[in-house]
Amino acid sequence: MKGRVYQKALEFHEFHHGKIAIKSKVRIKTTEDMSLAYTPGIAEPCLHIQTNKEDIYRYTSKGNLVAVVSDGSSVLGLGDLGALAAMPVMEGKAILFKIFAGVDAFPICLDTEDTEEIINTVKNIAPVFGGINLEDISAPRCFEIEASLKKLLDIPVFHDDQHGAATVALSGMINALKVVGKKFSEIRLVICGAGAAGTATAKLLIDEGVSQVIICDSKGIIHKGRTDLNLPKKELARITNKNDETGTLADAMKGADVFIGLSIGGLVSEYMVHSMASDAIVFPLANPTPEIMPDKAKRAGARIVGTGRSDCPNQINNSLGFPGIFRGALDVRARDINEKMKLAAANALASLVPEPSEGSIIPCIFDERVAPSVASAVAQAAMESRVARVWMDPEKVAERTRELVRSQ
Amino acid sequence: MKGRVYQKALEFHEFHHGKIAIKSKVRIKTTEDMSLAYTPGIAEPCLHIQTNKEDIYRYTSKGNLVAVVSDGSSVLGLGDLGALAAMPVMEGKAILFKIFAGVDAFPICLDTEDTEEIINTVKNIAPVFGGINLEDISAPRCFEIEASLKKLLDIPVFHDDQHGAATVALSGMINALKVVGKKFSEIRLVICGAGAAGTATAKLLIDEGVSQVIICDSKGIIHKGRTDLNLPKKELARITNKNDETGTLADAMKGADVFIGLSIGGLVSEYMVHSMASDAIVFPLANPTPEIMPDKAKRAGARIVGTGRSDCPNQINNSLGFPGIFRGALDVRARDINEKMKLAAANALASLVPEPSEGSIIPCIFDERVAPSVASAVAQAAMESRVARVWMDPEKVAERTRELVRSQ
Repeated sequence: MKGRVYQKALEFHEFHHGKIAIKSKVRIKTTEDMSLAYTPGIAEPCLHIQTNKEDIYRYTSKGNLVAVVSDGSSVLGLGDLGALAAMPVMEGKAILFKIFAGVDAFPICLDTEDTEEIINTVKNIAPVFGGINLEDISAPRCFEIEASLKKLLDIPVFHDDQHGAATVALSGMINALKVVGKKFSEIRLVICGAGAAGTATAKLLIDEGVSQVIICDSKGIIHKGRTDLNLPKKELARITNKNDETGTLADAMKGADVFIGLSIGGLVSEYMVHSMASDAIVFPLANPTPEIMPDKAKRAGARIVGTGRSDCPNQINNSLGFPGIFRGALDVRARDINEKMKLAAANALASLVPEPSEGSIIPCIFDERVAPSVASAVAQAAMESRVARVWMDPEKVAERTRELVRSQ
Repeated sequence: MKGRVYQKALEFHEFHHGKIAIKSKVRIKTTEDMSLAYTPGIAEPCLHIQTNKEDIYRYTSKGNLVAVVSDGSSVLGLGDLGALAAMPVMEGKAILFKIFAGVDAFPICLDTEDTEEIINTVKNIAPVFGGINLEDISAPRCFEIEASLKKLLDIPVFHDDQHGAATVALSGMINALKVVGKKFSEIRLVICGAGAAGTATAKLLIDEGVSQVIICDSKGIIHKGRTDLNLPKKELARITNKNDETGTLADAMKGADVFIGLSIGGLVSEYMVHSMASDAIVFPLANPTPEIMPDKAKRAGARIVGTGRSDCPNQINNSLGFPGIFRGALDVRARDINEKMKLAAANALASLVPEPSEGSIIPCIFDERVAPSVASAVAQAAMESRVARVWMDPEKVAERTRELVRSQ
């Protein structure tokens, strides 16, 4: 790709020879060290775990290990690059987990795009991990893979492209609506993109109380009359678009209060933004090129614009979510990451900007309060919704997160 | 289990909460860091790898990552403990890889003992790794799993319980035979245990020129006339025991020059050692309890005794082998770890004790020369036997290993 950042990134990766390494938490300098960390002493934690499976959290690293799993079928906005080419992204994700929230994440790039094989493989390697982060797996397979793994495993399974994106978008919306003085229950929301992120965002916002949701794919508005819908899109037709509207994205956007783009760059024109309601909120989140550039959207009348880009105000980036979400889930050994935990994360994020304005609706990803706040709120929600297996004071979760981040 | 070391090991594991962590090789403090390590810059190494698969070694951590894979079916000497209970051992192995040779190894404990499932799962996760170390998988499944994965993958697949054990035992024998003035081609060798380690040791020593090999399992000497042999044991009957001897382990040991025990503790009596040839070499390697305790073996007339124990002289321990073997294989990007590489490793190890004596036939596992020497010899053998995909000066391999160990 063209641009200085791409050449520099290439040199950066070659220089470091990848981004992750393994670190031993213990020293082995003497025969005694060896007898504790390995044979013969090691037999004892093994036997304890065999007797009581939960002891694996006590004597091993499982409780802080997350697999970042991808089949490379939908890498960034680049499409199906395959397992090998997905590796730089999964390593990148792994170090963000570590740097932002002290989570030990490891890339798992799968040499198969078969749904059953992926489910089986992840199930088979799950004993090592305290959580599974699915990543860059294309829709609609990602839905089935996530749903099956959630059923099979007793650790959280979280497809970040769905729920991370939805959670962070929701957090931006909480503050944006505050700025414009509208309520979730009143707005007309248009989502462009019915893949992983679009689908999850629609569902989370419906949970949050938005009743007028229109979602569009490349063929236009999704409605019950369409005969070209796969199962997940049929489900969308059922839960969105109550008045059975038909037409194009442009038709949908007329009079809309909020637009969220989770599709591909450049799809939205100034005219389309101009046709929205007053005080329009526009989140063109396609990466690296938004559905419409922020300056254009502003010119066309949008009051608040947020993108995925770091070089524009209001960066709505998944990195605000997943590190703290997993941190909180792991700390209370949650069985699942459920809707309540996502809502808690979104609210925690939003509350870090107590007086939001047009140019500041969401914290910066380098704001050190982010992961501790999110982790704390998620842990609390996990305990309240009874998916936590251990109790931990939410304030302690925040403190521990700060400590884990600092100590690196 | 009883004993102070076991209780201490338990406390040690609880205190550290496991032994491995992930480390980021790079810092992310600014938006620019983020744009290089993650989006948007990350797209560039991805696209390069998609175009040229070998570039994964250039831009990712694959080249230094090894999976330590187990199904928990044969953990230590404790038997089938399952995937969860195998975790402390696999973490232990992972940190030994790191501490002794700078290899980034990660535990993979599999929630299946089905041969086909294991093969498929490892194949599916292989894109991430530069090598696969199989561990504590019971015989005879371990043979098929290793053979299939070697065929399927273009990275080294090495079952350490087989080849690590065989390599280190060979290295001890090289020096022990030097001390007693006997040759490989002349000796009568008895191996007790026809599991993973025994089978591989028999094969490696036959490769090294031992023509009189007798191998025993729990039913006694393995010979062509037995009707209770599985396929791998039938193969052993074919390549060992040329005179078709029958009888017990005690019968086999009469007149033997070398005994290697890779079975279970306490099987060998003083009387059996006493019946061996003069200048007998006895390696009772069962862990933690040897087939016969060293003092007893000595009293019964053995001239040289080596065990797996750190509290006795001549510790014949896998940790002398696998870290350097993988280090050398990874550095020249070997497709395989073949017989020549194992022989090179054994000879390199033996040569670190240039003037062996009864009480000193093998270096100590904390001898800092071990991994660099082994890595260097293995890399050279890989290049000579044409399984290396890149060229690297063997002296450079040793130097790099020292540097990787020092820099932790």
